[in-house]
Amino acid sequence: MKSGTLYGVGLGSGDPELMTLKAARILRDTRYISYFSKGGKTGHARSIMTGHITDEHEEMPLVYPVTTEYPVTDARYETLIGNFYEESCARIAELLSAGEDVAVLCVGDPFFYGSFMHLYRRLAGKFPCQVVAGVTAMSGCWTAAGVPITWGDDVLTVLPATLPADELLAKLQATDAAVIMKLGKGFSKARRAIIEAGMLARATYVEYGTMEKEKILPLSEKIDDHAPYFSLITIAGNGRRI
Amino acid sequence: MKSGTLYGVGLGSGDPELMTLKAARILRDTRYISYFSKGGKTGHARSIMTGHITDEHEEMPLVYPVTTEYPVTDARYETLIGNFYEESCARIAELLSAGEDVAVLCVGDPFFYGSFMHLYRRLAGKFPCQVVAGVTAMSGCWTAAGVPITWGDDVLTVLPATLPADELLAKLQATDAAVIMKLGKGFSKARRAIIEAGMLARATYVEYGTMEKEKILPLSEKIDDHAPYFSLITIAGNGRRI
Repeated sequence: MKSGTLYGVGLGSGDPELMTLKAARILRDTRYISYFSKGGKTGHARSIMTGHITDEHEEMPLVYPVTTEYPVTDARYETLIGNFYEESCARIAELLSAGEDVAVLCVGDPFFYGSFMHLYRRLAGKFPCQVVAGVTAMSGCWTAAGVPITWGDDVLTVLPATLPADELLAKLQATDAAVIMKLGKGFSKARRAIIEAGMLARATYVEYGTMEKEKILPLSEKIDDHAPYFSLITIAGNGRRI
Repeated sequence: MKSGTLYGVGLGSGDPELMTLKAARILRDTRYISYFSKGGKTGHARSIMTGHITDEHEEMPLVYPVTTEYPVTDARYETLIGNFYEESCARIAELLSAGEDVAVLCVGDPFFYGSFMHLYRRLAGKFPCQVVAGVTAMSGCWTAAGVPITWGDDVLTVLPATLPADELLAKLQATDAAVIMKLGKGFSKARRAIIEAGMLARATYVEYGTMEKEKILPLSEKIDDHAPYFSLITIAGNGRRI
């Protein structure tokens, strides 16, 4: 029997209209729709899709195991998550082997820090696979903020706020433009590094960019230290203006 | 009279299906469609749009002056191009002032090294303006190549090949993942820097990614030094695989 195809479908940064025509077509034509979710919550990928799900679709949520008791560097965390990805792949592979196509929903762009990559590296060699690029969270956010990010020959550095403080600072000092992602608990550390690098005036804080709860403000005006998972900081480049 | 709105519309990396639903809607509903072009050529933005242009649309190409006689660092180049942007803005402003909406087509994402930014910074304060994020060329290319770019806490650095060789090398040595853009004449310099940084095995060359003439190969297998404007090199990160 001919295998089904695994689709990794980028949905864009949050606004359902930032989905591509290709994503919309594949989701319309694919019966099995799969997505990551956390303990009973719908998840952002599924909520972006809401207007596109019909009775013809079968939904297959992949529910993350509870891991809050372990830090990501703990071997037990890796084992739990590793097993979860293995089991998720087994469920998807069963459908693919039976000739069914499966579309995995991905917020942003699947190959840019996407959880889908952990399925892709296990399944891409075994089954036909097609990935659809999406508007990244950072593109959605700098656009929502009205801040062009790179001019002329600007260098852009994308930094996870999980990096050590001295590394964040050194990399900020070596770049023209920057995006700091994965803020969460690293927010105040990231802000200190930005201030020390002399970049505060060019920094914009974007929370839930292009989503309903969107909040955008100059980083200098953010007074608290709270930053949800869907938040980032953009630092615009200073390159050639003609 | 109420002003028209200026739209900066990201069309994605080249495949017309990578246009967003929002871009398609705005282009359907906007009469005046404007785009940059070079001496008699249609240009990539306009060709991506082909299936969406109807008799209801009025096209307004913005034709770059011939500048091949001056390097980009020459003051005469800046004057010529600066005047061209001023004149383009005057033409667009005339329509906006008359209450007409104008959509400017942008390959990729308008705020990521986009020529549209030169119009935006002149017009955004004077007229209502809405920018639509798009799939960047780099997202389109790493997806077409089947190469996830950033894992775990990887740092991504985007480098124009126009940088000096020593700077390219230093920035490659300081990053996990990289994309080298604006190859053109800088291609062989960029390849030497990648080899010296010990990153050749992770480097992929992508030419006309997601377009009809797409060509993808490991950088180590590219034997010539020719790289067109629509080409880039991706270097995948080595971060946490679970």
